[in-house]
Amino acid sequence: MRTTPNSHRVCAEEEPQMTTSIEIFCVGNELLIGKTLNTNAQWLAKRVTSLGLEVRRILVVSDDVEEISKAVREALQRRPRFLLTTGGLGPTFDDKTLEGLAKGLGWELEVNEAAMKMVEAKYRGYVEEGHMERFELTPPRVKMAKLPKDAQPLPNPVGTAPGVAIALQDITIIALPGVPSEMKAIFEESILPIFQRAAGDVTFFESSIEATGVMESALAPVIDQVMHDNPYVYIKSHPKGEERTPRIEFHLSTTAKDNRVARKRVSKALIQLSEAIQEKGGKITPSKAEA
Amino acid sequence: MRTTPNSHRVCAEEEPQMTTSIEIFCVGNELLIGKTLNTNAQWLAKRVTSLGLEVRRILVVSDDVEEISKAVREALQRRPRFLLTTGGLGPTFDDKTLEGLAKGLGWELEVNEAAMKMVEAKYRGYVEEGHMERFELTPPRVKMAKLPKDAQPLPNPVGTAPGVAIALQDITIIALPGVPSEMKAIFEESILPIFQRAAGDVTFFESSIEATGVMESALAPVIDQVMHDNPYVYIKSHPKGEERTPRIEFHLSTTAKDNRVARKRVSKALIQLSEAIQEKGGKITPSKAEA
Repeated sequence: MRTTPNSHRVCAEEEPQMTTSIEIFCVGNELLIGKTLNTNAQWLAKRVTSLGLEVRRILVVSDDVEEISKAVREALQRRPRFLLTTGGLGPTFDDKTLEGLAKGLGWELEVNEAAMKMVEAKYRGYVEEGHMERFELTPPRVKMAKLPKDAQPLPNPVGTAPGVAIALQDITIIALPGVPSEMKAIFEESILPIFQRAAGDVTFFESSIEATGVMESALAPVIDQVMHDNPYVYIKSHPKGEERTPRIEFHLSTTAKDNRVARKRVSKALIQLSEAIQEKGGKITPSKAEA
Repeated sequence: MRTTPNSHRVCAEEEPQMTTSIEIFCVGNELLIGKTLNTNAQWLAKRVTSLGLEVRRILVVSDDVEEISKAVREALQRRPRFLLTTGGLGPTFDDKTLEGLAKGLGWELEVNEAAMKMVEAKYRGYVEEGHMERFELTPPRVKMAKLPKDAQPLPNPVGTAPGVAIALQDITIIALPGVPSEMKAIFEESILPIFQRAAGDVTFFESSIEATGVMESALAPVIDQVMHDNPYVYIKSHPKGEERTPRIEFHLSTTAKDNRVARKRVSKALIQLSEAIQEKGGKITPSKAEA
């Protein structure tokens, strides 16, 4: 939606690029019972948005093969360019993401030779470092190298379980571990170049201001007007105080082929919005969350 | 999945109750671009889990009528007992949850008399308190009272926009604001009794321990055995260190009709698991996250 101009008038301004869409799936019961705060989702969303991709959905599902496979099949029908999962790649029975992905695709899981070498090399290293006496290739360790057919393992610079990439015709599925340090390391090493290539020259730019002294409901028509006059800038209001003693953050963002264009576009809208808020008697302060 | 025994052997123990399922939808671009950490989802997940409900999915979607309505239609097909949304009830153009819900249901939005009275009373109060000079019923203010046909408004003790409940035949949809204080206040005042009634006597019990000195992959068969011997306890391992210098949290949980039964069930599994980990050379410490 952030790619759709909210006005149809003819506009001399450069049109925004079509963005590359991505869905993020977080697999883990600990998220569904509220035990864990989903910082992984925020990190990934921020990181891929900054690269110019558009996050269409974030979904949390349980450690259950049926649930994962169902969610995967639903996602494939929505045709995002990327589906990125996090969590569920480890050695224990509750790590079910690859089984769920395989089932969703109608594929088999099989021991991937390259992944097996990665896992083995990790354990041989642990033995050399004296963390374990001897290495045995137990079923839980082999499990980490059982990937959906034709998947590509991604080296894990920090932990043991490799990440996984599956290139389908129109969509690439990427599976990362849930341990934040492992997820981030594989992302930066193996995923970043893929996403940069897919996003092309598109960049995302955002900025925020805060207004006090005017109710959000009184500013609604002002926002409509600024949105109308700046068709490629998305403005979102975030009430921070209460309606009666208002403090509202306005977050402006756009996606463009050129960072200078994006910056200029947001600045223009920001100035118009600030002036209009002041005309209504509001006060403007730069937001603490300013980009 | 937490309701399904992981073993089919005959068991003298009381069987777990079927839990009441719920899906949580968080509406907001700020979540999809990683600007905001989704603390609302964690709060809701924890709160409803503690009441004995089972969170099946958490979904984040954008402030877009099409996206919301599509997600709602998909959720209705999965038939959860409850669908709870948060965000998008305010006065500005970017608050689209009710429009999305209505479209997903194939219903019209119309001014709800009871909701209109709630909104009016709020603004008259703001005038009395001296926060505004006079009250005008502007379109953005009327917007907060435009609900899907047959919806029931829920008083907002903290803010202006009412919450919304829509009772369909098998599923109840509940829409709460995204401002955390408003979401929590409406939840505690209006939603808690509904959920308590739906959950019946079912309670959720959880406990955690941490193990050091054994690799997660070495403990995988141990967990399998304990899960097998304790068919109604769900055990999840969370690696905190790295595989070579492991620190693993084990989180045990169950759902039962009786809190004592639930507690006893988890304790029994906890003792067996601790002993088995120690036999493998591991050390046990109570988890910091212990319930």
